[in-house]
Amino acid sequence: MQKTPSNELKNRIATIQKELARQQADACIVTTAVNLMYLTDAIFDGFLYIAPQGDPVMFVKRPVDISGENVEIIRKPEQITDLLPKYGLGQPRRVLLESDVVPYESIMRLRAALGMPEVLGVSTILRKIRMVKSDYELSLVRESARLQSLVYARISSIFKPGMTDIDFQIEMEHLLRKTGSLGIFRCYGDNMDIFMGSILAGENAAAASPYDFALGGKGISPVLPLGANGTLLQPGITLMVDMCGNFTPYQSDMTRSFAIGDVPEIAHRAHQVSMDIHREILSFAKAGTSCADLYFAAEEMTHRYGLEPYFMGTVQQAKFIGHGVGLEINEPPVLTPRSREVLLPRMVIAIEPKYVLPGIGAVGVENTYIVHEDGLEKVTLCEEALVRL
Amino acid sequence: MQKTPSNELKNRIATIQKELARQQADACIVTTAVNLMYLTDAIFDGFLYIAPQGDPVMFVKRPVDISGENVEIIRKPEQITDLLPKYGLGQPRRVLLESDVVPYESIMRLRAALGMPEVLGVSTILRKIRMVKSDYELSLVRESARLQSLVYARISSIFKPGMTDIDFQIEMEHLLRKTGSLGIFRCYGDNMDIFMGSILAGENAAAASPYDFALGGKGISPVLPLGANGTLLQPGITLMVDMCGNFTPYQSDMTRSFAIGDVPEIAHRAHQVSMDIHREILSFAKAGTSCADLYFAAEEMTHRYGLEPYFMGTVQQAKFIGHGVGLEINEPPVLTPRSREVLLPRMVIAIEPKYVLPGIGAVGVENTYIVHEDGLEKVTLCEEALVRL
Repeated sequence: MQKTPSNELKNRIATIQKELARQQADACIVTTAVNLMYLTDAIFDGFLYIAPQGDPVMFVKRPVDISGENVEIIRKPEQITDLLPKYGLGQPRRVLLESDVVPYESIMRLRAALGMPEVLGVSTILRKIRMVKSDYELSLVRESARLQSLVYARISSIFKPGMTDIDFQIEMEHLLRKTGSLGIFRCYGDNMDIFMGSILAGENAAAASPYDFALGGKGISPVLPLGANGTLLQPGITLMVDMCGNFTPYQSDMTRSFAIGDVPEIAHRAHQVSMDIHREILSFAKAGTSCADLYFAAEEMTHRYGLEPYFMGTVQQAKFIGHGVGLEINEPPVLTPRSREVLLPRMVIAIEPKYVLPGIGAVGVENTYIVHEDGLEKVTLCEEALVRL
Repeated sequence: MQKTPSNELKNRIATIQKELARQQADACIVTTAVNLMYLTDAIFDGFLYIAPQGDPVMFVKRPVDISGENVEIIRKPEQITDLLPKYGLGQPRRVLLESDVVPYESIMRLRAALGMPEVLGVSTILRKIRMVKSDYELSLVRESARLQSLVYARISSIFKPGMTDIDFQIEMEHLLRKTGSLGIFRCYGDNMDIFMGSILAGENAAAASPYDFALGGKGISPVLPLGANGTLLQPGITLMVDMCGNFTPYQSDMTRSFAIGDVPEIAHRAHQVSMDIHREILSFAKAGTSCADLYFAAEEMTHRYGLEPYFMGTVQQAKFIGHGVGLEINEPPVLTPRSREVLLPRMVIAIEPKYVLPGIGAVGVENTYIVHEDGLEKVTLCEEALVRL
């Protein structure tokens, strides 16, 4: 297994330490899987304690056989207080925590255990730091995209007449896993459930979702109301494939659309507009471009072709056309009309202008791009046309 | 799709309303997927507001096209305050929330939005209510177990010489999905990641886990340090299969173990002890039995055969032999030596005495049982011997 270069891990910690100084805080305590992975290259059950100076300390509940410097095995957070002096650290009073993700009771217990009067959120900062990737991280995004593209290139051979959307999804999952997909699909936010991605066909593409994904779909059970719902893949409808690119800890995100037999002309037209939006964005986007301008480009093209009623849904329209990608599938920046961010070199963004056509299905293309000084580098390299199955 | 009978949903709400009265609370606000599913038969992004009397109100952010009585579409929690008078409800002061699962910031925002000075936890109560199942829920557990058993019965034909544990897992996942597995694996707790279950073979079975599952395994990536790690399934080691039984919203949990070719005698012996523990427990367990006594029976048998060093792990030993099962894979009661609970009629429990043999692998059997007045009903019906592959 590849490892994050140790100087990179040190830089990440140093960035948080600068933030601690800026906020005059005594410590940052990290406990969630994604941020532990980012800061230590490992996932454990416990607490990563970052003081304004010095190396961080890992207070670990599990696994009990974890080894390394600055590692303390504990059973409960109350023990941290007793161990801090060993590292020359006093009781923290003002502490940065992942308070948008960590449960209320866990934070209340930690506050009581460490006697911390002040809690400040750190997730937004961590997500901002994570937006800009290193060479190592970009190599993992490219590797995920390369493998995801290999699987997508075989979609025509996965499809068999008589299949339902869920039959198709299961064969797609199987090939993804055989090609090295890690299975687990990490996304950010409360109430966000997904299993290896989304397949939408026909009328089901218009079903509004409880989740904050681009599109919806009813799902095959009320316990996971998303994506494929058993729709027969019959001539006249479109099939949208938005399955996971999680082949390394860093994900890629890609959507391709297909016509089952002959489909109405509007499906071809709307799909072409999505491809044109990508081309248009590629013509101007680079480091320094406003994220909102990416949205406006898509909106303008949509308006020019009169496709507004179908843009990013029908009943429930998502007012965005893309998002950052990394350890989680939905990272900043979010490409909305209200975005105030600009593209920065080494950001990884997914752009996904999609149209939902009632009675037909969804069409459109999603690619993952790396932002450079002089433009965007496409990493999801695979046929983009509305291929006929 | 099957629906929960409406009188059952009413009973569940009524039970919470009794709890509100007991705790002199003004409301219970539910927001997590599992409990929304339990109380409304649907998952949405929003708030289920349960007052001490009357029907609950659904304040829904997404999907925007949700319909029904007592449904209000909102954009933000601040709007709830304005809508409460419409239902004859005043501002709540003392409120029950799922504070062990909902993030700190979400609860702080809700407190600010509704001006609620007092927050009390409701998850423990909800998990206790969910422990005892209805006929309808038991029928879904039995259906999951039936389908899971069908897949497990085909394990010998899935196995091919030269496979690694992850190759085997992928084929198992494929068959599970084709048989109706919903994919998503719901479990309770912070920092609990799993993808469709766990396969452990050879030395990897002893790898300690960051997660609170019975056993560990290194996994194929640091981003999911659990289960299969690429171990070649070669003669002399054992293969433990603990894959998901999530064919309906209600899960079943089952483990079977296999010998690849000839394995050392201790593997056969330890596996036999696990089977004997099940037989022993079946001879006395029924409604009214102390949960701790189930653990003690397993501990006593383990001691009798001198298998303590291998019981439920080696480096990191889990001090439990089972757990409740339902909408989440890890529900109460937990079968530990310290359990103070007794088995109640209609509980669903998984019992999993397992042994990890260094250099060989894990062995043991896990079954899911429904608790009745006169004994336990096994629902995971599938060969239990250490089958040779």
